[in-house]
This record gives sequence, C-alpha cells and structure tokens, in this order.
Amino acid sequence: MKPAMAKVKRIEGVLAPVITPFRKDYAPDAPRFVRHCRWLLKSGCAGLAVFGTNSEANSLSVSEKKSLLEKLVAGGVPASALMPGTGHCALSDSIEMTRAAVELGCAGVLMLPPFYYKGVSDEGLYRNFAEVIERVGDERLQLYLYHIPPVAQVSITLGLIERLLSKYPGIVAGVKDSSGEWSNTKAMLDAFAKEGFDVFAGSEVFLLDNMRHGGKGCITATGNINPGPIANVYRNWRSADADRLQAGISATRKIVQKQPMIPALKAAVAHFGNDREWKTCRPPLVELTAQQEETLITELRAAGFDMPGLASV
Amino acid sequence: MKPAMAKVKRIEGVLAPVITPFRKDYAPDAPRFVRHCRWLLKSGCAGLAVFGTNSEANSLSVSEKKSLLEKLVAGGVPASALMPGTGHCALSDSIEMTRAAVELGCAGVLMLPPFYYKGVSDEGLYRNFAEVIERVGDERLQLYLYHIPPVAQVSITLGLIERLLSKYPGIVAGVKDSSGEWSNTKAMLDAFAKEGFDVFAGSEVFLLDNMRHGGKGCITATGNINPGPIANVYRNWRSADADRLQAGISATRKIVQKQPMIPALKAAVAHFGNDREWKTCRPPLVELTAQQEETLITELRAAGFDMPGLASV
Repeated sequence: MKPAMAKVKRIEGVLAPVITPFRKDYAPDAPRFVRHCRWLLKSGCAGLAVFGTNSEANSLSVSEKKSLLEKLVAGGVPASALMPGTGHCALSDSIEMTRAAVELGCAGVLMLPPFYYKGVSDEGLYRNFAEVIERVGDERLQLYLYHIPPVAQVSITLGLIERLLSKYPGIVAGVKDSSGEWSNTKAMLDAFAKEGFDVFAGSEVFLLDNMRHGGKGCITATGNINPGPIANVYRNWRSADADRLQAGISATRKIVQKQPMIPALKAAVAHFGNDREWKTCRPPLVELTAQQEETLITELRAAGFDMPGLASV
Repeated sequence: MKPAMAKVKRIEGVLAPVITPFRKDYAPDAPRFVRHCRWLLKSGCAGLAVFGTNSEANSLSVSEKKSLLEKLVAGGVPASALMPGTGHCALSDSIEMTRAAVELGCAGVLMLPPFYYKGVSDEGLYRNFAEVIERVGDERLQLYLYHIPPVAQVSITLGLIERLLSKYPGIVAGVKDSSGEWSNTKAMLDAFAKEGFDVFAGSEVFLLDNMRHGGKGCITATGNINPGPIANVYRNWRSADADRLQAGISATRKIVQKQPMIPALKAAVAHFGNDREWKTCRPPLVELTAQQEETLITELRAAGFDMPGLASV
C-alpha cells in the first residue's frame, strides 16, 4: 500500500451511470460525453458513475475508457465527482482500470464481479477483489461493489461483503444494489450501513426507502435524463412532501422502462437536446425503432417531462 | 478487404480449448503453455482452440492473449493449427484480437458473441460480427461462431448464422456448438453443413453423432487430457468399432465432469505430468479441493486413464 493519505470525501446523493455517446463509426465521442457530464452535475447529480451498465461500458476497451476518463478530467469534470466502473472479466483489466481511476483522483470505483464464468464461489470472487485491492495498493482507493444479478448473473453476497469489509475496512466503501429487490437492499443496510458501508439503490424507485433505512442515495439509469427531480427527492427525503415527490420520479421511470433502457435514454437526450447523433448505440445494442421512440417521447411530453438547459450545454 | 489470398486449409478433427497455466502470482506462464500445446499436437489434436472458455480466456486481457499467441508461434506451434478465441464484450477488443490472430496466420478464430448485455437482438449481434469482419478486412479470416448459452447466456441462432453466411460466404466458416443439446447441433448441420459451414460439437460425447451427420469434429475441454482416444474416434468414425470407442471416451468425460471442469483439467495435468504448478487458476476460479482432486485421480486411474508422454515434454 502507498502511504495513507487524506481520503476524498465520499459521494452521497444521486449518481448517473452516464450514457456514452458514439459517432456513426462507433468510436466514442469525447466532446459530447464531457458536455453531458457537465449538464448532469449542473442539474442535480452529486456524482457520475461513468462506465456503468447503462454506459455500454462493457462494449468499450480498457484503453477507450482510460482515454475518456482523462478527457473528462481535462474537460473540467472534477475527479472528486467520479465513480467509474472498473470491474472486468479479466483480473488484469480490473487492476489496470482501477489503478487509472485512483491515479486520476476519482472519488471511488464501482466494481462488477468477473461475469463470464457462472456459478463461481465466494472464495473466487473474494480473491478477485482482494487481488485488485492489493495490486493497486493505494489507500486512496474507495471500492464500491456492484451487485446486478439480472445482467452479470454473478452475485455479490452478504458473506462476500462481510469478508471484504473485515479485511479492507476504509477501502471497501459501499455497494450499488441493482438486484431490483428491496429486501436485498434492506438486508445490506441492516448488516453493514452502521459500519460506514454506503448503500446506493440501483434505481430511484427505491430512493426514499433507501434513505429512510440508512442508505446514501441512488445510482440510476434515469439519472441521465431526470437528475433534477430525483435529486430533489434526495434533498427532501425527510420532508412531509417526500412520498409525493417519490411518486413523481417513479412515474417518469415507468414510462422510460417500457422501452429498452439504454437506447431509450439516448433517444431522450437526442430529442430534448436536439442532437440526433446521440441515438447511436454500439453493437450488440441497437437504437429504438421509430415506433418505440415516438411512444417514449409522446408519453414523456404528456407527463410534462423536460430536460432544462440540455440543448444549450 | 485486403486482396484475396490462398486460404489456409480448414482444420478438421479434434481441437482442445487449451488450458492456460498461471504462476503463483497469476501471471500467464508462457513456457508451460507452449509445452502443453506441443504435447496436444503430438498426441492427436488437429488444432488448438486457445483462449476458449476452458482456457480462462475471459480472465485474460487482450494484451496478455496477444503476447501468449506470439510466444506460441515463436515457440514452434504452427499458426495453421491455431483457432484462438477472439470474441469479447467490447467490439474494439474483438477487432484487435481477431486482427492479431489473422496477421499471425492463424487457421481461424472462434468468436463468442458479446456476452454482458442479455436479451440482445440478432440485429445487434449481426452488427457486432459484421463490424469485426469489415474492420479486420482480411480475406484470410476464417470465423467460427461460438455458441455456448449455458455460460455466455447469449445465443448464436440459426437465423443469425444464415444472415452472416449469406453476407460473408468463405469467411464465416463454422460453429462450435456447446449448447449441450444434440438437437441444436443437428439443426445446424441440417441447415448449413452442405454450404461448407463446419460444425464442431462442443463435447466429445457428441463426436460420433456429429461425424455421422456431416460435422467436422469436436472442440472439447477433455481434449486437454484425453486427446489420443478422442482423436481415435475421429479417425475411425466409419469403422465397425466406432460405438465402442465412443463409449470409452464418453466414460472418461463422465469422470472428469463430476468435478468443476477447468480446475479438474489442471489437476489432471499436474498429476499425470508431475508438475503441481499447473493447478493454479486465476480468480474467480479456484483449484479443486484435496478431496475433489483425490476422487478425480483415483477414478481416472481406476479407469486405466493415462497421459502418455506428458511428463517428458
């Protein structure tokens, strides 16, 4: 380990797993990426979980991600607001990407388990995360575990968290729970929140519940397009109005998730930002059909949805 | 596309998805890798599907794999016997690895679909494979599709094969079917074998059936330890003795697959090659327990199993 240094303040609140813009030739589009990140921070996001599932991060190489991360920081996005995804199938990739994030001064990293092999043991997953921590060897590292069994098909169990937290307190910082099951988030909160383990809900649908039980916010796909109202729930979760505010953001989510999520987010940014280039997805994902797009935009407009300031960033 | 060149002869027969040795620090062990590849080719394998599922390929970075591939060829393993795995989640990684394999003169590449996002469309998968073919742009490319739904959770459908084959005849060369369902392999054979599309069974259990219906061999985990007897079935599939030979290799397979496959293969090589360093697996995989290893070795010995010549390569 490098000598202990003052840790950056941990992020709390609403984070967006920032969607990644691609040019027509599928190359990452750094200028559009920087602009969208700036808009998100201006519009209520406390942090940016770049290179998450909704970022098509697993469709990007490590070198493409490192380059985008450097351009974000060079473009004025503060590293203290960044929690990049750094978990890969290959241990060597996870180490390289995590080291790059720490060296840039990122507030934390959000790590998927290695997700190719299925039915792996907690011992194998423990070795994976422990090896990354040891090899990066930097006490500035704040590692958030990323539990998303519907996609990764490999889980972060309570037993695994307990073992990692006990071996690496102060480094293992929290979790994003995208299981979609409140009972699981609640179990994580009950077991570890008091030890300074920060639990983020993987959807704003659980934001209020999470805050009421000791959680720290949410990291949510729709944070890409609806950051203001979601951050408003976070700021006012103790208010008498909280349930009404929560119902509003849950209703917007419901409209978006009728469509395939990632192309839907891109279609919304393309429409409300008047910038159709945003629609491109990298294979294996595809853009919305014209019909899906029309339904999405019509329903969002009917609900009074807007993305203020987006067209002018 | 680069100008058409004489295509290398397509591989037929038994291929091993070569297991990858690691040092105690989890670094790939190139000298042991080269030695094992040489033993496999001497012992009956027609080709080497390095960087397959059983190779822990998805636990390796692209640069680690490129380096190992170069060392194999430098170590005297003929590129004309190599069919490396080159399919990754990231399109850019798949392009880089496929290009490296073609430029080294490999006989073919075995490509997983991008496997992080689940429930993706055939259109998205088509774009992925087509983009790799177009970007590599080299008519020497022989692309074998890798269908392994139990692990990848993303399938290569008959419709996808049909579309790729019709657009890229002569480049889309075949498939490895690791569905574990003979009816699926049979459907692939019935639909495409006559068009020069080479179907390999993903397990030697289906080798004889595959040969009898127009297939070209098998690419099988246990090819790593039992290449001679499996190749014997391939060579004698038309003989009166074929069913008895097939029963023998199926019985050996049955012993091995009682244990977790990858560490079991490594334990067998460690034992019969008298080289215990072979046991190391890279996280998230772990080696066999002492009990599992004892059961494996005892049962293999009781069945008269051996790996002739392994200890002296």
